[in-house]
Amino acid sequence: MQSFAALVTAFEERFSATLPFPAAPANLYDPCRYLLAIGGKRVRPVVCLMAAELFGDINEDAWHAAAAVELFHNFTLIHDDIMDKAPLRRGQATVHHKYGLTAGILSGDVMCIFAYDALAKATRALQPMMQVFNRTAIEVCEGQQLDMDFESRDNVTIEEYIHMITLKTSVLLACSLKMGALTGGALGDNANKLYEFGKNMGIAFQLQDDYLDAFGESDKLGKQNGGDILANKKTFLLITALAQANADQRAAINELLAGDAPDKVQRMLELFSATGADKACRAAVAHYSELAFAGLEDVAIPSARKEPLMQLAAMLLVRDK
Amino acid sequence: MQSFAALVTAFEERFSATLPFPAAPANLYDPCRYLLAIGGKRVRPVVCLMAAELFGDINEDAWHAAAAVELFHNFTLIHDDIMDKAPLRRGQATVHHKYGLTAGILSGDVMCIFAYDALAKATRALQPMMQVFNRTAIEVCEGQQLDMDFESRDNVTIEEYIHMITLKTSVLLACSLKMGALTGGALGDNANKLYEFGKNMGIAFQLQDDYLDAFGESDKLGKQNGGDILANKKTFLLITALAQANADQRAAINELLAGDAPDKVQRMLELFSATGADKACRAAVAHYSELAFAGLEDVAIPSARKEPLMQLAAMLLVRDK
Repeated sequence: MQSFAALVTAFEERFSATLPFPAAPANLYDPCRYLLAIGGKRVRPVVCLMAAELFGDINEDAWHAAAAVELFHNFTLIHDDIMDKAPLRRGQATVHHKYGLTAGILSGDVMCIFAYDALAKATRALQPMMQVFNRTAIEVCEGQQLDMDFESRDNVTIEEYIHMITLKTSVLLACSLKMGALTGGALGDNANKLYEFGKNMGIAFQLQDDYLDAFGESDKLGKQNGGDILANKKTFLLITALAQANADQRAAINELLAGDAPDKVQRMLELFSATGADKACRAAVAHYSELAFAGLEDVAIPSARKEPLMQLAAMLLVRDK
Repeated sequence: MQSFAALVTAFEERFSATLPFPAAPANLYDPCRYLLAIGGKRVRPVVCLMAAELFGDINEDAWHAAAAVELFHNFTLIHDDIMDKAPLRRGQATVHHKYGLTAGILSGDVMCIFAYDALAKATRALQPMMQVFNRTAIEVCEGQQLDMDFESRDNVTIEEYIHMITLKTSVLLACSLKMGALTGGALGDNANKLYEFGKNMGIAFQLQDDYLDAFGESDKLGKQNGGDILANKKTFLLITALAQANADQRAAINELLAGDAPDKVQRMLELFSATGADKACRAAVAHYSELAFAGLEDVAIPSARKEPLMQLAAMLLVRDK
């Protein structure tokens, strides 16, 4: 049973040593190599490996599944950055900013296909893994679409927002866990419980991300502090603040949204607090965290084996608080 | 044993009745539905079904494989049209022109995933089908990249050009045939011979397309006559003309390439003829057609069963001549 740090190292070594991209055409594969070299936390492949280890030693299929989810995640980053017109990712130029739109589209496409190619190397459980992987991949696209749809809507509800972040970010974490479990020979029930654990953990993590973007003391993700506020992004905080605001507060929020006041971030934070949106967000993080941990306890495996996943979830969900 | 026309009808009916796209998010799936409704010749799924029928009745897996190649092909059309800045496809607005860049990227992505989802429904031969499908999908991306790389290069050779069109267009036809054969339980050797047949037929077809774009009397593809010439596209004709030209002819070609003479198409056609590029192109079409037909004869199946594929190849390779 290996710790998160140990598995990150093991995954990084193996992943970089077995990167599937040929040298040529360089204009296609250099952008792929570039993005993967920027790094990332590798949370998805590592939870996949952790889930596999719940049921025995990590086998070859688990490594293939882990590579698949990391490649798929990076494919979505390339294309999302184009759609979001983002110049930076983890403090570095995004792929389309560095290599152009065409390279961004095509290197993303080929990265997606290489994700499937990695998965197809699995010799057992290929069909059930493909099923959850495909459903997840479709949902991730739907989540990205909903996120963009929300930009032009003024009546997004909290339920819709939770649904969107579930699709856009949580299901891939859930899928990673389920595929890891399947490579370990887990039966359907345990695999599905791990899926639910990942889904709830992903929701909690994203809500915490919303919170930290606004109220975090420092920002370790390379994003601007209060970036969501400056971008008028419809986060849990803003949606809740608007829902819970009295008439004066709502007018103040809408005035801030309509303009570029120099103290926009500070004043919006005050309104998030005054409306109780901050508390609601912390409560929602706690709610989904509890659901996640309860689900993990439910997995029919000795508790000791679940320690690494417990520790990881705890680590992810108490950052900067 | 069914004819091309009968199989097109059968595929269209089944494909449109089982389209996998949900209603929502409409901004994601409407573009998918739109592109598929524009139509197309459905050559790839039909050759997949024909290959399956070489070895027995068309089974469920063959329909899944046929849907997969058609979805994959349409995914590449959406993204290629963005990269090529094409406003029209088959006389209709391209997806990104009608719905915007973001919709073009994301609906293409989800169409690609639905291609894999269709394939994953296959219950037999999934792993060998995934292998050829993945390799093909990667090659299609590489071919598109090479095509774009060639735009900024002045020294593209005929060998490089044939390699590019092989990857960009032929291998998907080849893959369609091989997957159909695999669904029919074909052994490796027959499946691989069908792959080679498809590859050579695809090359011949693309070279004929180059020829018809320049010398075709009318254009049934919805493209402008002489469109490749107006776009300075490095086709077999232009590359060969430059390679076979004397000094005067080369200067004349380069002058035409550098400008926008009102009679550019006519003068370039004369130079294609004067340099013998037109003959070379027809000879290359004949060469790859012969390779294709010889390969098909080699497949260890009674000749009578191969009639539909023979007829299809003959039909595709004698258009407008």
